[in-house]
Amino acid sequence: MASDSAGQPAANGGDGHKPVTAADIAAQIGGRLIGDGQTILHSVAPLDRAGASDLSFLAHARYGGWFATSKAGAVIMGPAFEALAGTPETRIIVDKPMDAMVSVLARFHRSEPRVVGVHASAVVSPSATLGVGVTIDAGAVIGDQVVIGDGCWIGANAVVSTGSVLGRDVRLHALSTVYPYTELGDRVVLHSGARVGREGFGFVPQANGPVRIPHSGRCVLEQDVEIGANSCVDRGSVDDTIIGAGTKIDNLVQVAHNVRVGRMCFFAAQVGVAGSTRIEDGVQLGGQVGLSGHLTIGARATVAAQAGVFGDIPAGELWSGYPARPHKEQLRSQAALNRLAKIIRPIEQLLKGESST
Amino acid sequence: MASDSAGQPAANGGDGHKPVTAADIAAQIGGRLIGDGQTILHSVAPLDRAGASDLSFLAHARYGGWFATSKAGAVIMGPAFEALAGTPETRIIVDKPMDAMVSVLARFHRSEPRVVGVHASAVVSPSATLGVGVTIDAGAVIGDQVVIGDGCWIGANAVVSTGSVLGRDVRLHALSTVYPYTELGDRVVLHSGARVGREGFGFVPQANGPVRIPHSGRCVLEQDVEIGANSCVDRGSVDDTIIGAGTKIDNLVQVAHNVRVGRMCFFAAQVGVAGSTRIEDGVQLGGQVGLSGHLTIGARATVAAQAGVFGDIPAGELWSGYPARPHKEQLRSQAALNRLAKIIRPIEQLLKGESST
Amino acid sequence: MASDSAGQPAANGGDGHKPVTAADIAAQIGGRLIGDGQTILHSVAPLDRAGASDLSFLAHARYGGWFATSKAGAVIMGPAFEALAGTPETRIIVDKPMDAMVSVLARFHRSEPRVVGVHASAVVSPSATLGVGVTIDAGAVIGDQVVIGDGCWIGANAVVSTGSVLGRDVRLHALSTVYPYTELGDRVVLHSGARVGREGFGFVPQANGPVRIPHSGRCVLEQDVEIGANSCVDRGSVDDTIIGAGTKIDNLVQVAHNVRVGRMCFFAAQVGVAGSTRIEDGVQLGGQVGLSGHLTIGARATVAAQAGVFGDIPAGELWSGYPARPHKEQLRSQAALNRLAKIIRPIEQLLKGESST
Repeated sequence: MASDSAGQPAANGGDGHKPVTAADIAAQIGGRLIGDGQTILHSVAPLDRAGASDLSFLAHARYGGWFATSKAGAVIMGPAFEALAGTPETRIIVDKPMDAMVSVLARFHRSEPRVVGVHASAVVSPSATLGVGVTIDAGAVIGDQVVIGDGCWIGANAVVSTGSVLGRDVRLHALSTVYPYTELGDRVVLHSGARVGREGFGFVPQANGPVRIPHSGRCVLEQDVEIGANSCVDRGSVDDTIIGAGTKIDNLVQVAHNVRVGRMCFFAAQVGVAGSTRIEDGVQLGGQVGLSGHLTIGARATVAAQAGVFGDIPAGELWSGYPARPHKEQLRSQAALNRLAKIIRPIEQLLKGESST
Repeated sequence: MASDSAGQPAANGGDGHKPVTAADIAAQIGGRLIGDGQTILHSVAPLDRAGASDLSFLAHARYGGWFATSKAGAVIMGPAFEALAGTPETRIIVDKPMDAMVSVLARFHRSEPRVVGVHASAVVSPSATLGVGVTIDAGAVIGDQVVIGDGCWIGANAVVSTGSVLGRDVRLHALSTVYPYTELGDRVVLHSGARVGREGFGFVPQANGPVRIPHSGRCVLEQDVEIGANSCVDRGSVDDTIIGAGTKIDNLVQVAHNVRVGRMCFFAAQVGVAGSTRIEDGVQLGGQVGLSGHLTIGARATVAAQAGVFGDIPAGELWSGYPARPHKEQLRSQAALNRLAKIIRPIEQLLKGESST
Repeated sequence: MASDSAGQPAANGGDGHKPVTAADIAAQIGGRLIGDGQTILHSVAPLDRAGASDLSFLAHARYGGWFATSKAGAVIMGPAFEALAGTPETRIIVDKPMDAMVSVLARFHRSEPRVVGVHASAVVSPSATLGVGVTIDAGAVIGDQVVIGDGCWIGANAVVSTGSVLGRDVRLHALSTVYPYTELGDRVVLHSGARVGREGFGFVPQANGPVRIPHSGRCVLEQDVEIGANSCVDRGSVDDTIIGAGTKIDNLVQVAHNVRVGRMCFFAAQVGVAGSTRIEDGVQLGGQVGLSGHLTIGARATVAAQAGVFGDIPAGELWSGYPARPHKEQLRSQAALNRLAKIIRPIEQLLKGESST
């Protein structure tokens, strides 16, 4: 359980343990091998913690210092670093170390075992429809009229409620919730604790207190959408809530009712999007960004972490800060404020002098 | 699964599909009908996506542009828009379009079916007490000495722990958690993943490390309180944590130990309230607002989204920003900062000139 | 269910109801008794709500006003307040009222009952290993090759996935999730809805859209770590994600992949830590703080609530604001900005005069 067990390969680098040679790795990724191709590698680890049987990576100059003293058995690296001074003698040179890393990691990755079929402890409504090759894990609950496409995998104790429709190869992790009448496209992933399709937070004030607005709009996650752990996507009131194909959402994110998100967007953790805001394709939102309601965020715009957005953002722009505005303006204001702090007193004295003369 | 299937009524507007005429709707809401009362409506949809069999709404002038080209079969609208230029010819005029919308939406809303009784897979302690007309869905777990009032509905795989007491008609959605000894008033709603009554985050530093403060205070949600998906309300240490009657809390909100929230408050998503803060009746907190501990927020105060509050707020005021202060002051400072950025260099030069003369 | 039932001891102070005399309490905490030692105490309550059978506390002068009119049966207080004017006549004087409070609260605290063994409705893989004295509550699911140490307590409907390893006396509350191959040290606590070990949010852009980076790094929570309700700790991609011994994390916190947190840190609710950031021992993060990726936060640094951190923080420093910087600088800038708002117009006029002459 210790965090500093460098040199003990089994404890060091994830769940690998499938020994492979450096030459094998070089062949797999089409890399040029320098050093001993017979080096045996059991797992992957970062440069500063890798041991003699770990494969590591060098993709950015900022980690050159770690490379200098790394004990890694072999290192995948870009051509620019080929001759860099450092302990590791076995080096595999590739043009795109990040792409190579993805395929190599897949090799060392120990996937979760899966048993096709319905676990005896799961509860599946007789009116639900299950496709071919579906897995329903222990304790999962599948409601009336639910449709589950071929190849779906519903995790332990997850709940899919009445009338929801899942495409093919959808993956619901343990303890996630699909509220009634929600639609999930092919290959959608819900992480543990994700809640999709709850009625949004809408009330109308009346004499006896607030009355809930019935939510008849849908909650639609198009194909290849991924929703992080404990994130929430509410269904619409009149309009639908839609997350466009390929959009990836991290943990603890809130997407309110009637929001429409385009394709291939990325939302970092703890982002909040208020009701009826439209986010066009390819938008990237940093961690803890908040968007207020009824806004339009143009295609491929980027919003820096923790920004608070209260107005529309044109396509392609980078905004930041509170209240958010174009990042360059934000930086200029911050710089001016910093310079102001040093001269505020002389300014005040100068004005006092002016007014007294 | 497509998000742009305008014109196909079944896919367009939520889970309705109960055909009704425009004349029926007008009669239901006491509206004045213009155009063809025999228009058949299958569901509801926003102006820009509605098709010939959809009912839509126009309550704000900002959506006049959508109205101009809307394909909606009929539109409920305020008297001010009666003669507005636009495609829709069947119009239903009412004084309060929002109120009308609520009752109309209820008509199109397809509610989740409910079976009274205890599902065979649920686990109910022999020492628990269940009222009349209670529903316990599949996989739910009800602990020892729990009391569940008449008409309660406990969702699939939800957990109600030892000694908790639920009033009448409480609705716990799937996978929500009631920690031990928590008290929920009549008609309380917990959305999926809500966690109420955990021991708060309180430690006292001691020689061997931090020691947890035992939490003997209660967690009380008064009647008609609603807690959003994945929101947390901790129990108190010495004091109780109390959420006042009728208060509505959105998703992913944190309410720490010993906090007392008044009646009829609204907290938007991702709000955080630190320990022992008191929030009086009718307070509204925008999304991602943070309140530090031991504060008092006066009745009917409003805090704008993302504000960080480090001091008391008087009753009825609107505050914003970081650190939060009265909204007008906040706007004045922001404006001054924006103007400063343009003149900081001349100011510095001026001062340099002053000091050198 | 009423929140203002002062004077009714049963409803007032948590789940106590074990009558005890003031003299007993004084003996337990080594305090000096003033007044009637035979006062019977049923529970604990804060000064402003305590009734005649409640024990209360006075540790800070700010609550002196409540003490003045408190109806508490007895009050534990520091020597400085011994002669303070106030209704309560029975007073127990101790040097460290907070420490005394912890031991007294434990006496009034009604703990959740526990039954050792595996509940009939739990699902435990035949290949899992269970230690001595383990409790597996109703509906919990334990996956293949999981190892559960002696004395662990797995709450209702919690899920422990394939290959995870739990030390001794680990406490998983209801509905928490341990993803596959996660490692939890002795006495780790996961609150309800905590999700540990999910694959982090990492994608590589490719021709057909983003491709997920396989996560082979581990997720390790060292001994005595506590993770709050609905908080998330992702596993690493290449590196491991590690939370150091004794670190306490509140609700709704996000810790991304490859983050390394030291020992004895405290994270308040809704903190977000982006990927690969390193946090050294004893760091304290206030509520809603955001740290961007690849940073180093030095030992014993403190970050004030809601700060947005975009650069390294040296050991021992207090930072705040957005973008975060040393707290004194932050205060100076805020003060300058406030003063600026009053003089921005005269400055502009002065400059206009300067430029026109």
